[in-house]
Amino acid sequence: MTKPFMFEKPLGMRDTLPELYETKAAVRNKMSDEIKKWGYQFIETPALEYYETIGEASAILDQQLFKLLDQQGHTLVLRPDMTTPIARVAASKLLNQRIPLRLAYSANVYRAQQREGGRPAEFEQMGIECIGNKSTSADAEMIALMADVLKAAGLEKFKITIGHIGFVQELFLSILGNEERAAVLRKFLYEKNYVGYREHVKSLTLSSIDKQRLIEFISLQGGENTLTKALGLLEGEHGREQLSELQELAVQLKEFGVDQYVSLDLTLVSHMSYYTGTLFEVYAGGVGSPIGNGGRYDNLLDKFGWDASATGFGIRMDRLVEAIGEIQEADVPECILFSPERRKEALDFAKQKRAEGIMVTIQDINAVENVDAYTRTFSDVHLFVGNGGRVSNE
Amino acid sequence: MTKPFMFEKPLGMRDTLPELYETKAAVRNKMSDEIKKWGYQFIETPALEYYETIGEASAILDQQLFKLLDQQGHTLVLRPDMTTPIARVAASKLLNQRIPLRLAYSANVYRAQQREGGRPAEFEQMGIECIGNKSTSADAEMIALMADVLKAAGLEKFKITIGHIGFVQELFLSILGNEERAAVLRKFLYEKNYVGYREHVKSLTLSSIDKQRLIEFISLQGGENTLTKALGLLEGEHGREQLSELQELAVQLKEFGVDQYVSLDLTLVSHMSYYTGTLFEVYAGGVGSPIGNGGRYDNLLDKFGWDASATGFGIRMDRLVEAIGEIQEADVPECILFSPERRKEALDFAKQKRAEGIMVTIQDINAVENVDAYTRTFSDVHLFVGNGGRVSNE
Repeated sequence: MTKPFMFEKPLGMRDTLPELYETKAAVRNKMSDEIKKWGYQFIETPALEYYETIGEASAILDQQLFKLLDQQGHTLVLRPDMTTPIARVAASKLLNQRIPLRLAYSANVYRAQQREGGRPAEFEQMGIECIGNKSTSADAEMIALMADVLKAAGLEKFKITIGHIGFVQELFLSILGNEERAAVLRKFLYEKNYVGYREHVKSLTLSSIDKQRLIEFISLQGGENTLTKALGLLEGEHGREQLSELQELAVQLKEFGVDQYVSLDLTLVSHMSYYTGTLFEVYAGGVGSPIGNGGRYDNLLDKFGWDASATGFGIRMDRLVEAIGEIQEADVPECILFSPERRKEALDFAKQKRAEGIMVTIQDINAVENVDAYTRTFSDVHLFVGNGGRVSNE
Repeated sequence: MTKPFMFEKPLGMRDTLPELYETKAAVRNKMSDEIKKWGYQFIETPALEYYETIGEASAILDQQLFKLLDQQGHTLVLRPDMTTPIARVAASKLLNQRIPLRLAYSANVYRAQQREGGRPAEFEQMGIECIGNKSTSADAEMIALMADVLKAAGLEKFKITIGHIGFVQELFLSILGNEERAAVLRKFLYEKNYVGYREHVKSLTLSSIDKQRLIEFISLQGGENTLTKALGLLEGEHGREQLSELQELAVQLKEFGVDQYVSLDLTLVSHMSYYTGTLFEVYAGGVGSPIGNGGRYDNLLDKFGWDASATGFGIRMDRLVEAIGEIQEADVPECILFSPERRKEALDFAKQKRAEGIMVTIQDINAVENVDAYTRTFSDVHLFVGNGGRVSNE
């Protein structure tokens, strides 16, 4: 273990310099304005939570949690997601009883990384949670609002893929008989390792009809007739209810006017284990990972003593800004350079500039080592030096 | 050690509910707009840093640091202040070479607390750093800009107390002879324990004249003639340069037009050990602790390999919002309740409302358990239910 170099940061930790900072701020404001227009209230929760309350309830793998001990000997975690802390607040009844409850957040979350040059260990998410709402219209609202938020952010082209983890489970359990075997297949799906999936299915002790059903399941991605094909795979009632939910969802998304952004993918599964129903991911531009994702989680609130269904989504700000692809050019201030005897004049001039909304840096010329290099970095320079009047290099 | 209750948060950790959230957001925006008008650029640094780079260089006591081990065996800290990470970024030359460099931040910092009901362990700071600027005009700029930022935030009355840690050190060392003895006296000053200070001075082995000088030093707080009285305490050159810096600062603050907010207190010392010159604190309203503080730190950048002087300030958002005293009332959205057969009508009406800038929640009436209780929480309710037209309870 070598001592870190003095400028080094921990694995996955990044600085955000001015241009990216302002770009993110502008995007963030447009998004939160849109979310508020849909009647969602923003809240903030602490960065540190008890492992026993939030860490265990969260869907993030234990090895990805940043853990520490507090002085009382409790294990704390840096919040790995926001859905679980929001569930804690919602269930604690701190908020007025407007149920269904609509909450929003804009916060950094933390997931430890194993490799150099890998994913960020700290990243910003903006998202919403709609709690105490079991209707399909809530699922449709999530997808329609996510589309509106992405458009408000300035993203023009994106694709939302919708699946149903409840359907996957019903089908897998009805064919495979137990959760262990279902989990193996879900892992292939999560990794989008369809070759591995097929080989594994072939190796299972199953009737050839059931093997065929599992193989055909893989093709339930996109296309007009995905739901019809899915219905053809069913035997008995298992999975029928979930498919009719998706059918209803499709009708509603058309009413919301966002059907052009969505496609069905019944093979979609998530690493977030708390999802129970419809779930979705959004992709855009050349960004290889989802810009956002969400879904229904009807059992999480129960961990905080409230038997409430819920649905929500989160958007990754870093990936969204990458997909939008435009880094805002930093506004370059003007500069007022003064010598001490003319300071008062310079300060008054600066005050006037600021009153006009102009960004202006004031600087004692005697404290500048390299005046040429310094002044080159401003959009305009005003000199209040010596006995003359103001000199601008306009 | 008992298991935490399911809603419990770690010591000093808080949730921020909607009204306070929006209040803080509004105040934060006004402040950052003002800071940008003075030509400062905002940056962001990670929440976690290496203990060996940031934790050791920070002025925060080791016992207040949240520490954890990463998977490579390095000790990490949750950033206890922002000045040290900003110094790391500034010294790494990631930014353009506009020196003096003017940077700003708005971030949460973390300091472990020992007691229930004590200070927050996570709190938001907004601040600036002016790096590579040794002129007194930079010190004056800090104080003038801090005053402008507080006014922009909506704070009308506040008092900025200015001291000079370099003067305290010069005087103490010239009388006491070593840092150990000076540190004991500084601790009394930091605790504002003037009784303890006097008793300790009396117990020292010093000439009665030197004892008298140390006792009179305590009275160098406020008042017109503080600087004159301070000059009277000096023997030889020790402290003279620092007093003339303060004299020059007072002249400049008048030119900046902020002299009505400031008073001198030469007994002011800070728990931030990196300060080397002028330092200041701001108090307002009934808030018992400083809302903000700042000062000159000419040696910190050296820890990152850049021999640069610097000055800056940070404002505590929680205390500022408390001092302003007005919690923004949450904007209450309107509600559109619909039954499924009239969903499309309701969605179109919602879209139109949002286009007019009105916040509106859409809700399937069948998913609301208690319609009366629910609708009472909105500013207006529009019903799209059954066969009739729209019904508003206006």
